[in-house]
Order: sequence, then C-alpha cells, then structure tokens
Amino acid sequence: MPRFFVSEEVLNGKFAVLTGPSAAHIKVLRLKRGDEVTLCTGDGSEHRCVISDLSPEQVSLVVQKTVASVSEPKLSCTLYVAFLKADKLEHVLQKATELGAARVVVFLSSRCVSRPDEASLRKKLERWRKIAAAAAEQSGRGRIPQVDVAANYDDAIRQAAQAELPLFLYENEDRLSLRSAVEASTPTSVSVVTGPEGGFSAEEVAAAQHAGLRICSLGPRILRCETAPLCALSALMYATGALDPV
Amino acid sequence: MPRFFVSEEVLNGKFAVLTGPSAAHIKVLRLKRGDEVTLCTGDGSEHRCVISDLSPEQVSLVVQKTVASVSEPKLSCTLYVAFLKADKLEHVLQKATELGAARVVVFLSSRCVSRPDEASLRKKLERWRKIAAAAAEQSGRGRIPQVDVAANYDDAIRQAAQAELPLFLYENEDRLSLRSAVEASTPTSVSVVTGPEGGFSAEEVAAAQHAGLRICSLGPRILRCETAPLCALSALMYATGALDPV
Repeated sequence: MPRFFVSEEVLNGKFAVLTGPSAAHIKVLRLKRGDEVTLCTGDGSEHRCVISDLSPEQVSLVVQKTVASVSEPKLSCTLYVAFLKADKLEHVLQKATELGAARVVVFLSSRCVSRPDEASLRKKLERWRKIAAAAAEQSGRGRIPQVDVAANYDDAIRQAAQAELPLFLYENEDRLSLRSAVEASTPTSVSVVTGPEGGFSAEEVAAAQHAGLRICSLGPRILRCETAPLCALSALMYATGALDPV
Repeated sequence: MPRFFVSEEVLNGKFAVLTGPSAAHIKVLRLKRGDEVTLCTGDGSEHRCVISDLSPEQVSLVVQKTVASVSEPKLSCTLYVAFLKADKLEHVLQKATELGAARVVVFLSSRCVSRPDEASLRKKLERWRKIAAAAAEQSGRGRIPQVDVAANYDDAIRQAAQAELPLFLYENEDRLSLRSAVEASTPTSVSVVTGPEGGFSAEEVAAAQHAGLRICSLGPRILRCETAPLCALSALMYATGALDPV
C-alpha cells in the first residue's frame, strides 16, 4: 500500500484532504477512487485511508482505521554523532533513519576536522532534517527521527547519559563489549556516542565516563567514523528484535 | 603498532626487507631502528617485526614472532551482492571489509540497472580488489577479503548454498528472522545474498529457495540495496562475538 508522510493538518477526524506534492504523487501513481493509501503523520501512528474523490486540485480520503506503525522498533536508540565531513554525516543520517534510529544528535568535539559556526550549523540542520524525512518515507518508517545539534560536547554527553543504556564507543576500550552491555540490561532506550575522523581525546573519554556513559568496544577492527554508528545501530536493532519480521 | 600489508616475497624466514611504498611509508612515519611494526601477508597471520636497518632504498626487519591475526572474526561470512551502481557497490565493498566479511561475490540479476559486459566487469574487479585491500589495511584486518564475480545468477546461488547457513534476504519474507536463523544453528560459515535496486524477481526467489537458500527478513523497514548487506553483516558479527574486544 502506498505510504505518504503528511502534516497533521490534512487530517480532520475521519476525513483527509491532500493538496500539493502528495496529491500530485497520488496522480502519478495512477491511484483512483476506492484505492487504499496509508497516511503517516510521523508521530508513530498510521492512518489507513481509501480515496473517495480526486479533483484536479486535491485528493479526498476517508480514514478507515488508525493504528500504531508496525515498522517502528521497540528500542528507542539515539545516535550522538560527531560532526563529520558533509557527505559522511548525510550518509549516516540517511542510513540511521532506515535502520530505525529514534533521534540523531550532532555535536562538535575537539578533533572535528571542519568546525562550522552556529549559523552554518543551523542551515545544515534544516538539510539534515529533510534527509531524515525523505529516508523515513522511503523506508516505511512510522516516525521521522528527530535531528538536533547539541550546544557543545558537554551538552551532548549530558543528554546521552540520560538513556537507560548510555554507550560511548571508543576504539581503545578493551573490556566492555556491546553484547555484554546489551544482554545485561535489556534496555528500552539506548544512546550511542561516536567520534569524528580523528577520534576522541583522552580528556573527552574521561569526561564521558565521568558523566555516566559506558565506554564500549566494537571489536578489534578499526571502523571508520561513518561505519561505527551504523554497525552499532544494526547490532542493537538485531539484539532487540527490530530486524524480526512483524 | 603500525601495520603494513606486504606480499609473501618480502619475508625470508626470520628476516624481511621492504622496498617501494611500504619502505617510503615507514620513513614518512619517522620510524627508526628498534621500532616495532606488524607485517601482514593477508593470509590471516601477522608478523611482529623490529626494524634492524634503514637505508635510502630499503628497510630491513627481524621477525620477532608470527601469530594468528586477532582481528579476524571466527565467523566466515561471504556477501553475495547484486551489481549496484558504481559508488554504492564500492561503498559496500569498503564497509564489508571493515566489518569483517571473508569474501564478497558480485553477481548480475534480472533487475540490475546497469549491465556491464564481461570485459568491463573484469576491469571493475581489479578496482574492487584494490578497495578491499586498502580497507583491510586501514581497518587492521589480518586478511584481505576475496572479491569475485559470479558467472551468472545461478552460479551465485549455487556457491552461496554451500555455506553452513545460506541466507537470502528478501523484503517480502515474513516468517524467518535473521535472529532465529542464527540462533538455531550457531554457524561457522554464512552466506548472505542481497539484491539490486529493484529487488529480486519472484522467479529468482524461487530459484534461490530451490537451491537450498533460506529466505530471510531484515524486519519491517525497507532497507536500501547498499544498506541491507551491511546491516546483516553487522548483526551477524555481533551475534557471533566478532564485535567483542579481544
């Protein structure tokens, strides 16, 4: 069934009216009166609708039922990703959305190669949110992951520390595995903090540990900065059943 | 300790002599007599060496000990990846190497968008092997994943079916999960077959099933063709302990 992300305003009780790009898209797909479509408002619920009327300007629908999206993982996983080169960060945002991240928070750390000012970060944030929205629609998510920028490194780790299982991935850690951290706690919320191209400084690792984050390994191979968060996310989704069919 | 992939010929019993790019690299790193380096021949073993002499032309080393690489996963996982657009396939090859794939086999299926001829594929294969070698060195692998091209679709699934756990990822599968497939068998060799941008045809799925592959889901979200193999590989490495520190 075709799925469209729409704003809350198009829904009015049992009825919905689409105009603009979604209406145009329905016509491109040659859908007609009586055909079923799913409208998602990005809040984790899905509205199963039937097309009741198509006019040149708009498409009218009747809501048959509203259900919780089956494609949302039970685990709420927030990735805290250091600011990376543009194409890598956009890649992480797109893939993290497909893989089921609940939220992505971008932060600056001492070894980030490029250091945009606040105005430039705000502009990028708009673009990142569009990437997440597009990936959510394309992958059939019921919710668009929230994308935010942390005020600074301390703010990022302070936020990350609030998850039930707060993880900080560090290539020099040789004790705690992701597997033992997950299996010991069966968490419902996880945060995963990953560093930039040049890694974290020893001071940053110490600050994270002090803030309550659990320093964690991803094994003996050195993963690139854009690979580590997606590997951890895939593993977490696997471990908590979010890769199982529904 | 710095690591270099070298050909078998540089090793001669307890001694090794580097010339060319590896020797130049050692000089760039300002390594000197007495410093330790690891030489990998890509066969899964590592030679821990001490630099005994540096001349303008070459670097001489003494092998202190030869050990099995600690960074190689116990699970031997081969990805069978349909031919994708160039940048996506190269991305998969790089990431699959970082994540610990033992081998990547590229094949053509009915819905592959671009269909290179055999000469062009052979040329690409050279490039893919270079990407895998570079990623293996950068990520500290002890072995360079083998990269091959299957003669055709039937050859790919016939090869894939030989693994202990032969998996075929299909977005319309709604019964078998990766998790239950892995937990039921604790395999030492796995193959994972994934499709092109347009997915597999019903005939191809039937042929895979007939060949003995197990049709498997990656959950309710629709993963892109370059995301699915890396998600599955991350999950398999997690499940079999290859993301644990050593």
